[in-house]
Amino acid sequence: MKGISLLGATGSIGKQTLDILRIHPKKFKLIAISVGKNIELARKIIAQFQPKLVSVQEKQDYEILLKEFPSSIKFTYGLEGIIEVATHPQAEVLVNAILGSVGLLPTLQAIDAGKTIALANKETLVTAGHLVMEKAKSKNVPILPVDSEHSAIFQSLNGENPKNIERLIITASGGSFRDKTRDQLESVTVQDALNHPNWSMGAKITIDSATMMNKGLEVIEAHWLFNIPYEKIDVVLHRESTIHSLVEFHDSSIIAQLGTPDMRLPIQYALSYPERLPLPAERLNLAKIGSLHFQEMDMDRFRCLRFAYEAGKIGGTMPVVLNAANEVAVAAFLAGKIPFLAIEDWIEQALENHSSIENPSLETILAVDMETRTIAQQFHKL
Amino acid sequence: MKGISLLGATGSIGKQTLDILRIHPKKFKLIAISVGKNIELARKIIAQFQPKLVSVQEKQDYEILLKEFPSSIKFTYGLEGIIEVATHPQAEVLVNAILGSVGLLPTLQAIDAGKTIALANKETLVTAGHLVMEKAKSKNVPILPVDSEHSAIFQSLNGENPKNIERLIITASGGSFRDKTRDQLESVTVQDALNHPNWSMGAKITIDSATMMNKGLEVIEAHWLFNIPYEKIDVVLHRESTIHSLVEFHDSSIIAQLGTPDMRLPIQYALSYPERLPLPAERLNLAKIGSLHFQEMDMDRFRCLRFAYEAGKIGGTMPVVLNAANEVAVAAFLAGKIPFLAIEDWIEQALENHSSIENPSLETILAVDMETRTIAQQFHKL
Repeated sequence: MKGISLLGATGSIGKQTLDILRIHPKKFKLIAISVGKNIELARKIIAQFQPKLVSVQEKQDYEILLKEFPSSIKFTYGLEGIIEVATHPQAEVLVNAILGSVGLLPTLQAIDAGKTIALANKETLVTAGHLVMEKAKSKNVPILPVDSEHSAIFQSLNGENPKNIERLIITASGGSFRDKTRDQLESVTVQDALNHPNWSMGAKITIDSATMMNKGLEVIEAHWLFNIPYEKIDVVLHRESTIHSLVEFHDSSIIAQLGTPDMRLPIQYALSYPERLPLPAERLNLAKIGSLHFQEMDMDRFRCLRFAYEAGKIGGTMPVVLNAANEVAVAAFLAGKIPFLAIEDWIEQALENHSSIENPSLETILAVDMETRTIAQQFHKL
Repeated sequence: MKGISLLGATGSIGKQTLDILRIHPKKFKLIAISVGKNIELARKIIAQFQPKLVSVQEKQDYEILLKEFPSSIKFTYGLEGIIEVATHPQAEVLVNAILGSVGLLPTLQAIDAGKTIALANKETLVTAGHLVMEKAKSKNVPILPVDSEHSAIFQSLNGENPKNIERLIITASGGSFRDKTRDQLESVTVQDALNHPNWSMGAKITIDSATMMNKGLEVIEAHWLFNIPYEKIDVVLHRESTIHSLVEFHDSSIIAQLGTPDMRLPIQYALSYPERLPLPAERLNLAKIGSLHFQEMDMDRFRCLRFAYEAGKIGGTMPVVLNAANEVAVAAFLAGKIPFLAIEDWIEQALENHSSIENPSLETILAVDMETRTIAQQFHKL
């Protein structure tokens, strides 16, 4: 029985992680969770899974829950609470499904504590890939991707020698606006953007899909996860999201992973790795789908993807700025304060105004992250 | 340096095997070859590769070549010659790329001699899968597929537990006549049939592609190679031959192998396994291909595929009859003696008239093979 700690239990990935734990009650035991402000759902999760430790975001929620549940369940809150969840001694695997750069510190602490990391938090590798992978290597801790694209690459590399990789090919559905021209993008609304054609995800990642920043962050993550230079990472537009990603080897052979769009598969694979467990998910029927389509990525149409490649290649703190500026801009768009295309402009501006610091420490990363947000908020008078 | 024996050196697979040996002269050494009647090409191969042993089909060719080359090269002929090539003590791998049921005996002898088998000869597994796989298991000899579809499955199974396989999905280009109705098939010519849309192959296999018998034989081979029941082997029509085949696991994940249609890849993979070696082959460009298509297989349109499933499920000597009747019928078609659709009728008739013998010995297999041919030839007055 594998003990599981779960950061972000009430989010989209968190809920689907709990689905997997419900399917395999004899394989996995939920040890500790962190939640945000959705206390109603937290109550239900606690009642069903009886974890040993629960961390909430706000102190007042902590005080409320403390009174409701028996003392066998420990409650805590804030960043310290998250770290306690991430490093719980009875957990073997940490599923990091928390949103935003707050996910970085608990990942590093969990690696120090020898936990296997099932990583859904993008910011961890985007902002501090060098620190995370170095620490994981020195502690001999596996970093297992939960994202469908990285999981596809990871599954395609099963039994293969990474030295033989010639190219990673990440597929992109194109998001909500894949068929719109840049002119048409000028007047799209938040509602339009949240209507993703293939995947049901949280709001932030759905907007990131529409801007293609999501794919850009995935390129940076793939660079770190698989230790592959950016020149060998391609993105191809694939509307059906059926081929989740591909690996080309130096003998011209390509191995790919396919399936219906169901995040429970990559989540389960990260939990069960190196085993596979049965999953009662919808089976892919290629004949029913009929055809799969592929298009070259247009870096002028999807400027955020180009920014991500550029920031990734420069390295240092540049991806930190990319990520922080994007978070601020997406939040401003979701709040109805700026139009869709301004997201790109804000990011471009932030990148242009930053001089990258090479090989940054955790403190530098967190400082640059904070600084980028502050500057953006002051500059744009948010 | 791996020593290689090659049966069928002047055929399509044989020539491409030699291409691989030319690309990797420090990895592989050609030890022994068998050729048919193409003595002109045999001369060139012998001059370039200087094998230690050469077997030809006819005694007169043996006598001619014997005088032309230095005594350091040993010549031989006939079935005994083929077996000597297959079991040469300096060869580690036997590439069996000989056509027809003559390929069976040398495979069995090579397994006995502990050789790794790179198998391109379909008849070996179709007619005697139970004998071959049992012997390979007892001698701990790997049977490595050279066919692109089986190689795709084999590559997709890298690092996976075969117990988790839910389904094998073999792709079929559909052959020369995939867009023709059964009415239109009544008047097709040999030239039409030999015009395969995707792959450049020998005449027999190109006709087998057009009748879909090729796919039927592959289903039977897959059954034996991967130890999977027929109910778990699907065939899907995929015009572009880009996805070479797929494996579905019990967690709903599908792993597939893709590439340009180049037989050198599966040949090289079988030679280099478990390694991959660089291959200067054309790279797959999905965006350039644009779209991939999939259709359900119509077992009434492609009756030979249905015959193969039925013969495979009955087992015993039924696949022997399927294969022998098909060989005789295809030869009659290629000789212009019967129309295209009569191939199916001949096979159906042969299967209907046969009572399968369970778990047949090698002698029984060879006897049923011979008998099927004789009956067909007498019945149809060939």
